[in-house]
Amino acid sequence: MIIIGGTATNGIDESLSKILSIPLVKVENKIFPDGESYIRVPLSIRGEDVLLVQTTDYPQDKHLIELFLIAETIKDLGARKLTAIVPYLAYSRQDRRFKDGEAVSIKTILHILGEVGVDSLVVVEPHKPEELSYFKGELKIIHPYHQISKKIKELTSNPFILAPDRGALERARKIAEEIGAPYSYIEKERDRNTGEVRIKEAPNVSLKDKDVVIIDDIISTGGTISQASKLAYSLGAKSVIAVGIHLLLVGDAKERLREAGVKTLIGTNTVKTTDKDIITIDISHSIALSL
Amino acid sequence: MIIIGGTATNGIDESLSKILSIPLVKVENKIFPDGESYIRVPLSIRGEDVLLVQTTDYPQDKHLIELFLIAETIKDLGARKLTAIVPYLAYSRQDRRFKDGEAVSIKTILHILGEVGVDSLVVVEPHKPEELSYFKGELKIIHPYHQISKKIKELTSNPFILAPDRGALERARKIAEEIGAPYSYIEKERDRNTGEVRIKEAPNVSLKDKDVVIIDDIISTGGTISQASKLAYSLGAKSVIAVGIHLLLVGDAKERLREAGVKTLIGTNTVKTTDKDIITIDISHSIALSL
Repeated sequence: MIIIGGTATNGIDESLSKILSIPLVKVENKIFPDGESYIRVPLSIRGEDVLLVQTTDYPQDKHLIELFLIAETIKDLGARKLTAIVPYLAYSRQDRRFKDGEAVSIKTILHILGEVGVDSLVVVEPHKPEELSYFKGELKIIHPYHQISKKIKELTSNPFILAPDRGALERARKIAEEIGAPYSYIEKERDRNTGEVRIKEAPNVSLKDKDVVIIDDIISTGGTISQASKLAYSLGAKSVIAVGIHLLLVGDAKERLREAGVKTLIGTNTVKTTDKDIITIDISHSIALSL
Repeated sequence: MIIIGGTATNGIDESLSKILSIPLVKVENKIFPDGESYIRVPLSIRGEDVLLVQTTDYPQDKHLIELFLIAETIKDLGARKLTAIVPYLAYSRQDRRFKDGEAVSIKTILHILGEVGVDSLVVVEPHKPEELSYFKGELKIIHPYHQISKKIKELTSNPFILAPDRGALERARKIAEEIGAPYSYIEKERDRNTGEVRIKEAPNVSLKDKDVVIIDDIISTGGTISQASKLAYSLGAKSVIAVGIHLLLVGDAKERLREAGVKTLIGTNTVKTTDKDIITIDISHSIALSL
């Protein structure tokens, strides 16, 4: 078995190689002057089982095309079984037709992954696990809850786990139970005219003296978390910690979170970050345990 | 039959709609804050034959992913036959393993196009027509030589057609014959040590008083054409016109061409240009004739 590190790995390929004691080879990659990607798999892999690591954070489309190119090349070169570890799977929020005629983007991405030779797909915290059924091969879903729970316990002895909406409740509950902390969620509603999402009902709890830990799968513009943070303070929170498994942090998201009182920001290396202020969990251990 | 205009069409969708008197509908498209593309086909197309126009110029990977999303959506919505008109097909220069282990990128792109539902593929001046055999469906290749010949005749009454290398000779010959002009090519060789391409043999002709028209399929960094232009002047050329069917013009290519004495630059709208100095041929007529 061999690990092939793709063009976007955030160190997960190297960590997995060490944890699992499997040799790592990096794909050769350059960008041609016109912007096209060049890919080369610089070793003989005929008959081998390959673990390919390639995340699809920004720029998502480039990382996806590179993933397709690498996968098909690995199969063309005669590999036996190809397992693609895609820590952050782009396009996972467009998982159905919210409006007639919309692309179900994640369906197309997963369909292509099957066609270019991926036999088994490993994804960390997909937006909705059900959507992965569009992939025709073997599936493994990684929930890095143990690593996140451990980090939260290091940071506070008095946490309250808060899901920013009902969709995030199950995740919050599991992490809260692992920590042995209380938890709740925020009930929201969408204005039928403006499309704006508002808080319908605050959780009926006191957050006095609590370090409130708001947990979501993806933090993108930071809007949802900021709203939740302000609510937490209005219910008496001492401080707010925000956890996003996939920290996209688009535009001025970080500033927005700080302004809403988020004191600590925790993410993982499914998405690239170079920000020293952010506590970044290497989720390689969670992946390694599942392989 | 209906024409669907994709996210990158350079007006070809509108021209085709007018020329062929087929209704045009534009795909709805936006970019989410995190960089993902949103696609919607805003009409009922069940049972319809669809002509989809989507070129894959820069940013190639985004335009390709959007092409895949649009194609699969069109088929999911029940279209009967999907013809994808891809005027410029990205990744066409990586058409074989120049070195062991390289991705044959165009193979993967064409394989995916078949899998996402493209039944028939129309491409303008592919880098090598043979490579299109990686596409499993129906194929149409457009050579816009008639439109280019017409434009050259408008610009000069004393042209000499020059292919910048042997690979470009067949194209130059066809255009020269249509115009009724003399033609030749430059013999090159690659240094085995440095990889540098040099002129091995200049054509044994006088270019005195000639307007030399150098024609290639893709002009990217402009290096090949600049070399050819200087050679043309050394053989007595009065002026140099450069024609690229796909004018990528990466970085300072335009400046480089001017410095090498290129007086006029001709391209087509397979690739986006907003440059007023460039004569841009709308190749929609050539496409329309083939449909």
